[in-house]
Amino acid sequence: MDKKKGHVTLPSEANFLNETKELMERWGADAIRDSDGTKLDNEIKQLDAKIYTTYFVARGHNDFAEKHMEECQQLYLMSQFNTALEETLEIDFMKGYFEEQLKPDYIHDPKKYWEVIDRTTGKVVDYHFWEINQELNRIIINKVIPWHEYTVSFLVYAIWDPTQMYNHITNNWGDKPHDIPFDVRQPYSNEYMKNLLIQWLKDNPETDVVRFTTLFYHFTLVFNNLGKEKFVDWFGYGASVSVAALEAFEQKKGYRLRPEDIVDKGYYNTSFRVPSKAFLDYMDFVQKFVAKEAKKLVDIVHESGKEAMMFLGDNWIGTEPYGQYFEEIGLDAVVGSVGGGATLRMIADIPHVRYTEGRFLPYFFPDTFYEGNNPVIEANENWLTARRAILRNPVDRIGYGGYLSLAYKFPEFVDYIETVTDEFREIYHTIKGIQPYTGLKVAILNSWGKLRTWQTHMVAHALWYKQIYSYLGVLESLSGAAVEVEFISFDDVIHHGVPEDIDVMINAGDAGTAFSGGENWMSEVLLTKIRAWVYNGGGFIGIGEPTAYHHEGRYFQLAQVLGVDKELGFSLSTDKYFTTSVDHHFISEDSKEFDFGEGMKNIFALSDETEIIEFSNGEVHLSSHDFGKGRGVYLAGLPYSAENTRLLIRAMYYAAHKEDEFYKWHVDNIQCEVHAYPEIQKMAIVNNSMQEQTTLVYDGIGNRKEVTLAPSEIRWEVYSNES
Amino acid sequence: MDKKKGHVTLPSEANFLNETKELMERWGADAIRDSDGTKLDNEIKQLDAKIYTTYFVARGHNDFAEKHMEECQQLYLMSQFNTALEETLEIDFMKGYFEEQLKPDYIHDPKKYWEVIDRTTGKVVDYHFWEINQELNRIIINKVIPWHEYTVSFLVYAIWDPTQMYNHITNNWGDKPHDIPFDVRQPYSNEYMKNLLIQWLKDNPETDVVRFTTLFYHFTLVFNNLGKEKFVDWFGYGASVSVAALEAFEQKKGYRLRPEDIVDKGYYNTSFRVPSKAFLDYMDFVQKFVAKEAKKLVDIVHESGKEAMMFLGDNWIGTEPYGQYFEEIGLDAVVGSVGGGATLRMIADIPHVRYTEGRFLPYFFPDTFYEGNNPVIEANENWLTARRAILRNPVDRIGYGGYLSLAYKFPEFVDYIETVTDEFREIYHTIKGIQPYTGLKVAILNSWGKLRTWQTHMVAHALWYKQIYSYLGVLESLSGAAVEVEFISFDDVIHHGVPEDIDVMINAGDAGTAFSGGENWMSEVLLTKIRAWVYNGGGFIGIGEPTAYHHEGRYFQLAQVLGVDKELGFSLSTDKYFTTSVDHHFISEDSKEFDFGEGMKNIFALSDETEIIEFSNGEVHLSSHDFGKGRGVYLAGLPYSAENTRLLIRAMYYAAHKEDEFYKWHVDNIQCEVHAYPEIQKMAIVNNSMQEQTTLVYDGIGNRKEVTLAPSEIRWEVYSNES
Repeated sequence: MDKKKGHVTLPSEANFLNETKELMERWGADAIRDSDGTKLDNEIKQLDAKIYTTYFVARGHNDFAEKHMEECQQLYLMSQFNTALEETLEIDFMKGYFEEQLKPDYIHDPKKYWEVIDRTTGKVVDYHFWEINQELNRIIINKVIPWHEYTVSFLVYAIWDPTQMYNHITNNWGDKPHDIPFDVRQPYSNEYMKNLLIQWLKDNPETDVVRFTTLFYHFTLVFNNLGKEKFVDWFGYGASVSVAALEAFEQKKGYRLRPEDIVDKGYYNTSFRVPSKAFLDYMDFVQKFVAKEAKKLVDIVHESGKEAMMFLGDNWIGTEPYGQYFEEIGLDAVVGSVGGGATLRMIADIPHVRYTEGRFLPYFFPDTFYEGNNPVIEANENWLTARRAILRNPVDRIGYGGYLSLAYKFPEFVDYIETVTDEFREIYHTIKGIQPYTGLKVAILNSWGKLRTWQTHMVAHALWYKQIYSYLGVLESLSGAAVEVEFISFDDVIHHGVPEDIDVMINAGDAGTAFSGGENWMSEVLLTKIRAWVYNGGGFIGIGEPTAYHHEGRYFQLAQVLGVDKELGFSLSTDKYFTTSVDHHFISEDSKEFDFGEGMKNIFALSDETEIIEFSNGEVHLSSHDFGKGRGVYLAGLPYSAENTRLLIRAMYYAAHKEDEFYKWHVDNIQCEVHAYPEIQKMAIVNNSMQEQTTLVYDGIGNRKEVTLAPSEIRWEVYSNES
Repeated sequence: MDKKKGHVTLPSEANFLNETKELMERWGADAIRDSDGTKLDNEIKQLDAKIYTTYFVARGHNDFAEKHMEECQQLYLMSQFNTALEETLEIDFMKGYFEEQLKPDYIHDPKKYWEVIDRTTGKVVDYHFWEINQELNRIIINKVIPWHEYTVSFLVYAIWDPTQMYNHITNNWGDKPHDIPFDVRQPYSNEYMKNLLIQWLKDNPETDVVRFTTLFYHFTLVFNNLGKEKFVDWFGYGASVSVAALEAFEQKKGYRLRPEDIVDKGYYNTSFRVPSKAFLDYMDFVQKFVAKEAKKLVDIVHESGKEAMMFLGDNWIGTEPYGQYFEEIGLDAVVGSVGGGATLRMIADIPHVRYTEGRFLPYFFPDTFYEGNNPVIEANENWLTARRAILRNPVDRIGYGGYLSLAYKFPEFVDYIETVTDEFREIYHTIKGIQPYTGLKVAILNSWGKLRTWQTHMVAHALWYKQIYSYLGVLESLSGAAVEVEFISFDDVIHHGVPEDIDVMINAGDAGTAFSGGENWMSEVLLTKIRAWVYNGGGFIGIGEPTAYHHEGRYFQLAQVLGVDKELGFSLSTDKYFTTSVDHHFISEDSKEFDFGEGMKNIFALSDETEIIEFSNGEVHLSSHDFGKGRGVYLAGLPYSAENTRLLIRAMYYAAHKEDEFYKWHVDNIQCEVHAYPEIQKMAIVNNSMQEQTTLVYDGIGNRKEVTLAPSEIRWEVYSNES
């Protein structure tokens, strides 16, 4: 095997043959892909590389779509809140929505499929009391109660594919036609989709890998009346809705969904919402359908002798790779965008595919590749965070996207990617399939469990948001840490208990969200199982507002475990004596200062049995508390950084009562990490920073030595098990 | 009338005759009082002054109390939370309580009066399943559910008066006997109390004013096992409970109270809790009883030709001066401690008494009067904040407390108080009974309304607490502002609507508290009445988490009025476009920088119709929003300061759409204020700071002029209504 070649995918474009050859050679690429806006010409397709070709299933064929506008994709939307000033209320329900994207569905009887809700009482308004003016897109409601607020939940057709819409508007594509998304649940579309693929496969013999971008239903992305993003949920099932789906759902599940089950008071069941039974049923229903239909396409691809790869994004709804129907699709590969360690693991850990591929940053677009900017910096940062995760579980391939001709103009960048691809292959060939040393097994506990593996607390995929970064840091830290990570749901614990081998459980999130758990913490089964588990030696780490549900005098339902609770203002009259932090603590031994991100207000210690590690502004931000043989650790927040990664790892070892084992395969410099692979007796000592670092390295049997690593260096060493 | 004398009460003590005479003369005192720890001797009692004598109704007579320990005062307490590890659970229910203060009541059958609660489910444990070990003060519960948490609600006798206990422990009184508080609801105590007073009045002929300190039931003050404060609630009804009271309650109200109605999950119905129906009934029941019994004592005092004055504090529970039974007591006067403007108004505004008296700070105790400290500073600060309020509505008298001999050692202090007493009398004689100019009428809206006039957001009376100072500032600012203030409850609005003459309504507090309102905001009547009122021109100011109750897609139920809501994490997927603050705004015109105290996180504007006045850290902290002809103003918090007082006043004028009237009787320097008294055509221009200030003064008809005021100066001017 040529270790200088392979496992790398190169984007290319027309009229770029020689440079493509050169970069294939330098980066060791064995696959070439097209991108949004680029096409490969025939000469490139003849190169010694697999050819990936982007394929759109349910858009980009307006010739067909325009003939079947009744098969357009649909959405349920909620109007703004409207205050009734008198007994009649007229609502401009499309107000704030983008008419180029969305069109009210008057084909299906609004009286049957729409809902007017009095949001002051939560009651549905009888449809006899309202009428629609279709010319003006208004609804006129009679006999409303003055000063109550009303919303309309209504069905629309989505007449513009959201990804194309985004690119179209962002790049000023002017009068370029709008891609109309069609719904493969509908008869003509379903037929068309299959025939189209069969024909396409015939027309594209050079394609080795069909890169589905993606399947049927786009994540929810709705624009406003000014053509700007209004609502975006990377996990959103909004665009999978249709009258046909609603009716099929009723057939399958034995009950009818209300519009409210989808619009969800305007929250649209984002992954931050504790999912309702109806929404879980609906997801299951869509996933099953998507898997069944996707399998048909994959089979067609396979029959043509090609591979089927799915891009993890865009029209990915219903394909959840950690869901229970994913295996049935039979995909060969999944490719996704790598924003850091957590997103890398989200891709690398996907089961039931032969290989995974990470598309690294930066994308070769003019927003990064412009004169005066150094794209190496972004590439280096991206690589360092991803490399931590790769050292735990590598994706099988890495690749890039965009205009290769643009990247080619930055020779330093080309040089840097050459080192990255070599380094990736070295790691891959060394550790692929090898179990790394793992000090602890950690479970992330939330409403979603396995389904949202490495996908918690995300809004628009991997973007920074004020209210999530203090939690996302947990995943990012864990993605490259020497621990095994499992995602479990409240239902898992309720039905199956805490898995035997778990050392530490983490519950992180804002009160009431799916990630903290909301009303799940009213389950006495959940509470008793976790209390028993901690008492018998488990470690429970709560971050932000863990286990929060105000009930019977407690806000944190595991306050007795954590040793802290949040003061909501009701127990101000009870003296809070415990305001002194300990001088030293195992958890904070490497912490010079603390960064809890957005932090959390008004956390207090219940008794002097709580070890307060950080106390400021009259609040606890970091603490630990013994509960039987186990421990509860509280953290106000954990944005990602080298310091916080170390803090979390220490907190986990402490919670698990395994402080002694912390020094196995350990480095004292927090900018470095060491990963050991006992099966092959090799270790990788890595410098995660862009500066030179010196560190003591502790091996697994008590030896230690000092090493100095160049910026970003990874150093492989063979070790023996004898001291 | 000698304007250099009167309206001042001097504390005195034994063997201090000549100095007392001198200070009486210099401060113009016309009354002399004893204090805790001081007694007046006969010569002093012969001076030309009214004599106030402190009188304790229900403690200080252990000779009686010891014979009737079954008539001791009682409390319901809740044990700590106890996690069941197996099917039997033993609870040391007195753990953490102070055995010198509290003794379990085994006289009355615990099976009838105690409650064991499973706090994991909220269910009461059948009393057949538990037994008490009286020797060890333990309860043994059988058939508990492992890993559920249990508490015991139990009755105790309070065997030590809390005020005496506090003084005893603080001052190391050693083996001085503990005052046993007896319950005047019990037959012997009731009889004793009356006879004692009759005898005492005979024994104290020189007393002119019986200064009740206080009546029957102390506010809740419970100490911990280390003899330190554990729970303190200045409004707490804890010590009014007894088996006799519970049985009488059942007779009167037709239903039985549960222990849980009193212990309230360990929150003990503090004034931060939205009051339950049962607790409101209980308060009413106690107030009625207290008023009836207090009236008997007052009648006895009056029959002896003396006056009855009540100290507003200590055993004041049930006497609420703004409650519906207070008038019946027939008191001549109320005296209370003045911590600033709000507490001054709390005293000065009391109805149904002939006069009120404020006891000013500092108290003449060694904690302030020690060598090297200058007590003038504290006195000056106290006076400046109180004076703002006095200029709105003066108390009838001011006074001091403690050791006069101590104060006498600080000649500068004696001089300063001489100026204060003169200044007080000047204000009093000028404006008493005169209506000051008032630009707006403001209603503070919360669960308590009138009952807690000037008493919102207080924990231990007037102390600083992290979670209240950002709200207390509102009251302190209003106490001296040229506005009329009314306190109204949600029930008032529900049953009677918003009072006609209200310009601005303020709702301030943390979510779920009695001050924000919690589930009251589920009342559609409340919501519709306020929405209609604002729409028709009212001004609504929300501070902190106003109108908060998560329901139907909104956290702030008046979000449509305020134009802002709080992001709880469920609508992160909805774009928040509105992040730009306006360049200038009427409300912030005098603000150089902002101080929102603890502030509030994650507030966002609903639309571009919200005028964002301050935006930082990705959040709105100050905004305004038109709603019909009215306005909603949002403020993240308002600690007291001259800057924030101005900000609030501007916000109120803006909310009320009366910006033009803001410049009537106005000063441009925020350290100054002007109060006008149209009936007498006088104005007081005051410097609220300890530095010289220059300001423009605007009168009521468009004239303005510049004045320079000495530190703390008050300048009286006559004005005419002609420009």
